[in-house]
Amino acid sequence: MSPPVPTGLAPGAMLGILGGGQLARMIALAAADLGIRCHIFAPEADSPAFDVAARHTVADYEDEAALAGFAAAVDVVTYEFENVPAATASFLTGRIPLHPGARALAITQDRLSEKNFVADLGLPVAPFRAVDTLADLEAAVAELGRPCVLKTRRFGYDGKGQVKIARGSDLAEAHEAIGRFPAILEGFVPFLREVSVVAARGLDGAFAAFDVCENEHRDHILAFTRIPANLSATACDVAIDAARRIGEALGYVGVFAVEMFVIEENGAERVVINEIAPRVHNSGHWTSEGALTSQFHQHVRAVCGFPLGATARRGRVEMENLIGDAALRWREYLSEPGAHLHLYGKRDARPGRKMGHVTRVIPE
Amino acid sequence: MSPPVPTGLAPGAMLGILGGGQLARMIALAAADLGIRCHIFAPEADSPAFDVAARHTVADYEDEAALAGFAAAVDVVTYEFENVPAATASFLTGRIPLHPGARALAITQDRLSEKNFVADLGLPVAPFRAVDTLADLEAAVAELGRPCVLKTRRFGYDGKGQVKIARGSDLAEAHEAIGRFPAILEGFVPFLREVSVVAARGLDGAFAAFDVCENEHRDHILAFTRIPANLSATACDVAIDAARRIGEALGYVGVFAVEMFVIEENGAERVVINEIAPRVHNSGHWTSEGALTSQFHQHVRAVCGFPLGATARRGRVEMENLIGDAALRWREYLSEPGAHLHLYGKRDARPGRKMGHVTRVIPE
Repeated sequence: MSPPVPTGLAPGAMLGILGGGQLARMIALAAADLGIRCHIFAPEADSPAFDVAARHTVADYEDEAALAGFAAAVDVVTYEFENVPAATASFLTGRIPLHPGARALAITQDRLSEKNFVADLGLPVAPFRAVDTLADLEAAVAELGRPCVLKTRRFGYDGKGQVKIARGSDLAEAHEAIGRFPAILEGFVPFLREVSVVAARGLDGAFAAFDVCENEHRDHILAFTRIPANLSATACDVAIDAARRIGEALGYVGVFAVEMFVIEENGAERVVINEIAPRVHNSGHWTSEGALTSQFHQHVRAVCGFPLGATARRGRVEMENLIGDAALRWREYLSEPGAHLHLYGKRDARPGRKMGHVTRVIPE
Repeated sequence: MSPPVPTGLAPGAMLGILGGGQLARMIALAAADLGIRCHIFAPEADSPAFDVAARHTVADYEDEAALAGFAAAVDVVTYEFENVPAATASFLTGRIPLHPGARALAITQDRLSEKNFVADLGLPVAPFRAVDTLADLEAAVAELGRPCVLKTRRFGYDGKGQVKIARGSDLAEAHEAIGRFPAILEGFVPFLREVSVVAARGLDGAFAAFDVCENEHRDHILAFTRIPANLSATACDVAIDAARRIGEALGYVGVFAVEMFVIEENGAERVVINEIAPRVHNSGHWTSEGALTSQFHQHVRAVCGFPLGATARRGRVEMENLIGDAALRWREYLSEPGAHLHLYGKRDARPGRKMGHVTRVIPE
């Protein structure tokens, strides 16, 4: 079965979304503005996105009967997370347009293939080695030196599936700590700051990036995003151009994020590509009030084949993530003039759980 | 049964909305941002708001069993239209907090009681007379002179239920044209412009108005809203103060709109109150992108007992209604940088039907 030729949809179409968390929820809210209805497919019965979608299916991503019904009920499928199983993507491809496509998923859900892909484009990445065995690990550490970071090739996010290897670390313990899964070892990058580029590529190949944003993590979880980033205009241009090349090489359709480290080299700032997220991204949440088009509207526009929207900023913007208990301060945020509260409708404010975020825009 | 004491809710609460059109839909979208779930109650099976709400009930507003189930399933009830039957409001009151309350509904759904209410506050209204019979009409026209307008007391909107009485008009025909329903005759107001004040009153009595906006109607339907209005600062203050007094006198909770005529009197601009809408209002749609808090977020804040949000403008704003076929030009609007398209998810673009709107914000 050859894949259907992707064509633009019209308002009234049904957008299928794999995953029912806050990203799917915010995509669905944006879709509603454009007259697009949403059908959420997720395994968890109390998925936050169900509350704002016309339809939902509760089923495992491997449930082919449920997937077939889903594919038949929608006009295009997208997803909110990069760990969509390859079999799921492959099952859907051929039945219905899937944006971003299976190739973007395959490359970005494996750290090794992602690093190779980025390096093959001639873009700067941290030094890395594939690690399958303890012997591989020992050899790689000898080559890249300490400190360095061992990361599973798959299913890592928010610091999960990775362990730092410092001067005194025991390598067998480190290998054990990541479950001895296929991994990569990354050389340490002495970065000054972390930034990201959130960008979109349309069905017609058009590219539009939001301004480079600066990210502050706490306990491996994004805590704050600030725009504009503290980064030279030249380095910003380089960063956005890297995102453009990545999008083109992936034949990408939709919004994606490229996380980067900022390093200093010979007195100049340079960016090093850290990670690609083939989806709307937490570091793009500021766009809801801070840019002319939000990343969620942009993603819907892209995957439906609509023209991309303008990405200009509305001012200096700050996004603050509400992790765990922080969401209990909702009344404070509602009382702060000009603060925009977004809650995800999750019931339990467990530690480390992303419960919502706040944006603030200061006109320049 | 005495009505429950209204208290503030918390995120996670369920908001009941009577009516399933675009206003309910946009209230539900705003509620989602605040972690509030929505349950829509509407008689039409394909109501646009159902697509973005956690739950919905399809039933007549007179269906007490359905209303009882609805009341039991939600934490507070609001509505998107002023013609909620009095019996429905009364049935819900006592079971569940209803905001705005039954009194605001009772007064504003009858043009005669509304005019008396406004006049009793000492606020300027067009001269008016109650008309029940043709004899009443003849006497009223003799008193107020021609031209004048005969309007049914109930169920008029977008120019429906009203007829202009000009120099040569036959009064019996006019009376026939409005179905001989109980009516009022309004004297002609030689207005320069139409403006409205969209404002909110919180559960705690706090008041917050958006800037006065100027409205342009075509065929009795709102076509454009522009902010700031072409109105002197003094007249703007008077207009907002009138809205504040109306809100207080109604013991109002939620967003409401006061439509006004601008007239010139002794060289100065004055406003004359035309109509009160006890709900979010088409002339407030510009606030979605044009103000720090949208009228929909503000309404949810008010009826949930949350603090009201800041109402400052983000620039000069224009709102363009997409009536009927105009919505077919959606791709043009999506291609216009900085234009924000909102479609309501209605299937048939029938003539005169409100299908969506576009806002444009020009930073000042």
